[in-house]
Amino acid sequence: MKFTVSEIAKMLDGTIVGDETIIINSAAKIEEGQPGCISFLANTKYEPYIYSTGSSAVIVNKDFSPKREIQATLIYVENAYTAFTILLEEYQKLMAGGKFGVEQPSFFGDNSSMGQGGYRGAFSYVGKNCIIGNNVKIYPSTYIGDKVEIGDNTTIHPGVRIYDNTIIGKNCTIFANTVIGGDGFGFAPLADGSYKTIPQLGNVVIEDDVSIGSNTTIDCATMGSTIIRKGVKLDNLIQIAHNVEIGKNTVIAAQSGVSGSSQIGEQCVIAGQVGITGHIFIANNTKIGAQSGLGKSIKKEGLSLSGSPARDLTEHLRSMALTRRLPEMEERLKDLERKREHSEVQERD
Amino acid sequence: MKFTVSEIAKMLDGTIVGDETIIINSAAKIEEGQPGCISFLANTKYEPYIYSTGSSAVIVNKDFSPKREIQATLIYVENAYTAFTILLEEYQKLMAGGKFGVEQPSFFGDNSSMGQGGYRGAFSYVGKNCIIGNNVKIYPSTYIGDKVEIGDNTTIHPGVRIYDNTIIGKNCTIFANTVIGGDGFGFAPLADGSYKTIPQLGNVVIEDDVSIGSNTTIDCATMGSTIIRKGVKLDNLIQIAHNVEIGKNTVIAAQSGVSGSSQIGEQCVIAGQVGITGHIFIANNTKIGAQSGLGKSIKKEGLSLSGSPARDLTEHLRSMALTRRLPEMEERLKDLERKREHSEVQERD
Amino acid sequence: MKFTVSEIAKMLDGTIVGDETIIINSAAKIEEGQPGCISFLANTKYEPYIYSTGSSAVIVNKDFSPKREIQATLIYVENAYTAFTILLEEYQKLMAGGKFGVEQPSFFGDNSSMGQGGYRGAFSYVGKNCIIGNNVKIYPSTYIGDKVEIGDNTTIHPGVRIYDNTIIGKNCTIFANTVIGGDGFGFAPLADGSYKTIPQLGNVVIEDDVSIGSNTTIDCATMGSTIIRKGVKLDNLIQIAHNVEIGKNTVIAAQSGVSGSSQIGEQCVIAGQVGITGHIFIANNTKIGAQSGLGKSIKKEGLSLSGSPARDLTEHLRSMALTRRLPEMEERLKDLERKREHSEVQERD
Repeated sequence: MKFTVSEIAKMLDGTIVGDETIIINSAAKIEEGQPGCISFLANTKYEPYIYSTGSSAVIVNKDFSPKREIQATLIYVENAYTAFTILLEEYQKLMAGGKFGVEQPSFFGDNSSMGQGGYRGAFSYVGKNCIIGNNVKIYPSTYIGDKVEIGDNTTIHPGVRIYDNTIIGKNCTIFANTVIGGDGFGFAPLADGSYKTIPQLGNVVIEDDVSIGSNTTIDCATMGSTIIRKGVKLDNLIQIAHNVEIGKNTVIAAQSGVSGSSQIGEQCVIAGQVGITGHIFIANNTKIGAQSGLGKSIKKEGLSLSGSPARDLTEHLRSMALTRRLPEMEERLKDLERKREHSEVQERD
Repeated sequence: MKFTVSEIAKMLDGTIVGDETIIINSAAKIEEGQPGCISFLANTKYEPYIYSTGSSAVIVNKDFSPKREIQATLIYVENAYTAFTILLEEYQKLMAGGKFGVEQPSFFGDNSSMGQGGYRGAFSYVGKNCIIGNNVKIYPSTYIGDKVEIGDNTTIHPGVRIYDNTIIGKNCTIFANTVIGGDGFGFAPLADGSYKTIPQLGNVVIEDDVSIGSNTTIDCATMGSTIIRKGVKLDNLIQIAHNVEIGKNTVIAAQSGVSGSSQIGEQCVIAGQVGITGHIFIANNTKIGAQSGLGKSIKKEGLSLSGSPARDLTEHLRSMALTRRLPEMEERLKDLERKREHSEVQERD
Repeated sequence: MKFTVSEIAKMLDGTIVGDETIIINSAAKIEEGQPGCISFLANTKYEPYIYSTGSSAVIVNKDFSPKREIQATLIYVENAYTAFTILLEEYQKLMAGGKFGVEQPSFFGDNSSMGQGGYRGAFSYVGKNCIIGNNVKIYPSTYIGDKVEIGDNTTIHPGVRIYDNTIIGKNCTIFANTVIGGDGFGFAPLADGSYKTIPQLGNVVIEDDVSIGSNTTIDCATMGSTIIRKGVKLDNLIQIAHNVEIGKNTVIAAQSGVSGSSQIGEQCVIAGQVGITGHIFIANNTKIGAQSGLGKSIKKEGLSLSGSPARDLTEHLRSMALTRRLPEMEERLKDLERKREHSEVQERD
């Protein structure tokens, strides 16, 4: 990044108060700013920092009125937070823009095709009969099996493994070492105590605008498809089992797991280290707290759940509080028992 | 897959009712069938679907008698579910059969040997002094260290990392990005608060017929071996620490972890997100519910356990139910206290 | 390993009792020893094994006096355990020492530099403008992005992915398939229910003497740095989110996760499968039990915590014990209610 404040203000449709010729070469939090950095102030909690920040420029809301003198140049915009993320995006595009073409050695199977404007890194492997769209970036050391389809503008980070027959939409990002389409965990017990592998013949379908973190695993369906709907965001180290369906725009945090054939609704927000059992249904707009365990279907939409087994958040918190007070409750119970004992003795006397 | 119903019936030793010339090119669940698909009906719960299925053929048990007209061709067999998995296996063999020979570039170290009929993908790395059996498939981008032994018919999927001195049996499958034989987590505290690494010199031994999912980690022993016995099935994202032993035919679901030196018996079934502490012993045939935490040895065989800390499943469920009723119990306690108070006041009057 | 007992005793400054010419070629636990092995005895619990061990030599504390005859040659040292780990380290150095130079094909980007004495394995990828120190080992199939710095004597195991701008100190070890610097999980909700990616422009800084297990993920900061301080030890399958800071010499066991912007103190010991929520602070010397959930800051140093939500270990154990006794407590409550009912009836009579 190397822009003048004037250029940035123009990009953000902002108004400058201060020196517009200063050169900006990095972004920083307002409390950690250094000369050459640009920061933003949206939350008034952080206002004290603007009077002492080391940043050369700060993006502020148009209604911001300083209470003291400010060293930094200010850029007034409609919404400081939005403007700042736009700026970061532009910066990120500039930074990421550098990867084009094909590095060697790399492997590209028979009858596979790749659109315009993309990147294939060294030691990447693309199998046979794959259809890869425009502007797709395939980083080094990735493995893409046979008959895989990848939509335009999707990025596959280093070490990602994509098994045969996987279909991935447009504008997706899959971070490093994630595995898409490994066999579902299906074994049938035999009479001698050993297990027979149940063949897993389905695939994984990932729709558009999906983001998947690092070291996550999504298993292929036994038959049919494991489906990740449009706009889903998955964090790192998540397990999605065979035949699961994750609804549109649902967000799942790190280290959570969904067991086989469960169906998660749209717009759900699932925190970290949550476990969801197999063959259940979670309604749209469900919110699930960290480390919860879901063992039953949730049919009503919009609930907030927590605990293992999970239930209504308010009830869960109340029970948790009482669990903590169990020693006290036991004392009270003992006290009553003693008194009872005492009055019985008296009555008998 | 492209077979006539007649060919399939012959393969399964089945009897056809309906058109035997229809061509089958895929398998599907009975409720999701399309023309050209074959399905099966074993569980009577799914019987309603057979009257409306879009599948061209359905495999049914020999005692099945339709209550209404069925469009699909039926194949009567001894056991519909078994017959169907046999069919899927045949199909899978056909599909997977395509990988043979050596793709370049790949690395094969000095004094290593590989049997007949195998596959080594591009960018795969095999170190020195390895002994690799017949029909072993080593997918692209795998790393196999020095002095590793791999038995016949074992498949190593893309991105698997196998450290020096690991021994893997016959007929094993290890899915993508799993790591076998990384250092155990052992550090000795020093006087200044820092930690000294305890050298991990042992290895991992995996016996025959073991299946290991994606992104799982199995650490090498400090000394001796971490051992995965014959027929064990491990899911994705599992942690097996140093010097652990997992008994024959034990099954562990995703995201569970076993700490150092613990010994799990044979034929255990361990659900997802379970944690097992170090240096304990779990008896044969133990069943452990999802998200449980085992902190003590289980010496009696055949128990079903749940909870964290884990205990008898029935007791656990009863306590969980009562935990949920704690607010009500507290009300009852308050009520007794009020009444007691009241009678004491009366007595004093 | 191939040394005479005499050579080993010299290395450890020990005194020999028995045959000093025996050749040692491996190390083993005292209870698993074989001819040619060396073992140690430090914990008196294991003393019975020394009278029957198959090992050819045993390292013992200088104050050890045998109660019966011992077959093995003894090496008396100041501290048997320390001496043994020194021996193992020497052995490990010898074993690992074999990797030097550059294997081909490998990729090394423009303007990157690497010091003396190092190793770059086949299919390893180093991006542009990287600065790599002396004696750094980069194993096969690793990916190192652009502008990465790696200090002297650090080892990067197979399949590790290191994103752009990461800084790694000296004497670090990062095990297989770990991902450093993937995007933090940050999305801003839009009016239509979809999410907008918040650009993650920061990096990861790992200080000296850090060890990181296999398949762990450490996300880059949104701005600034995710920081792993000197001497930290992380196990396998751990999640460290964006902008987290882990204090000096803190140890975290497998499958634990720390959410965004949390700050963990120095010298903490965090067991396996622990979850720590975002934006909290954990004081120095905190000990956290397995499967705990931390939802609030811990300001006092030196506490031992357990449970989800976590609290004082002793209190937690007491509540857990009472939770188990809930069925009994309910019986007592019922009993009191019955008696109360009965006396009320009597009073009314």
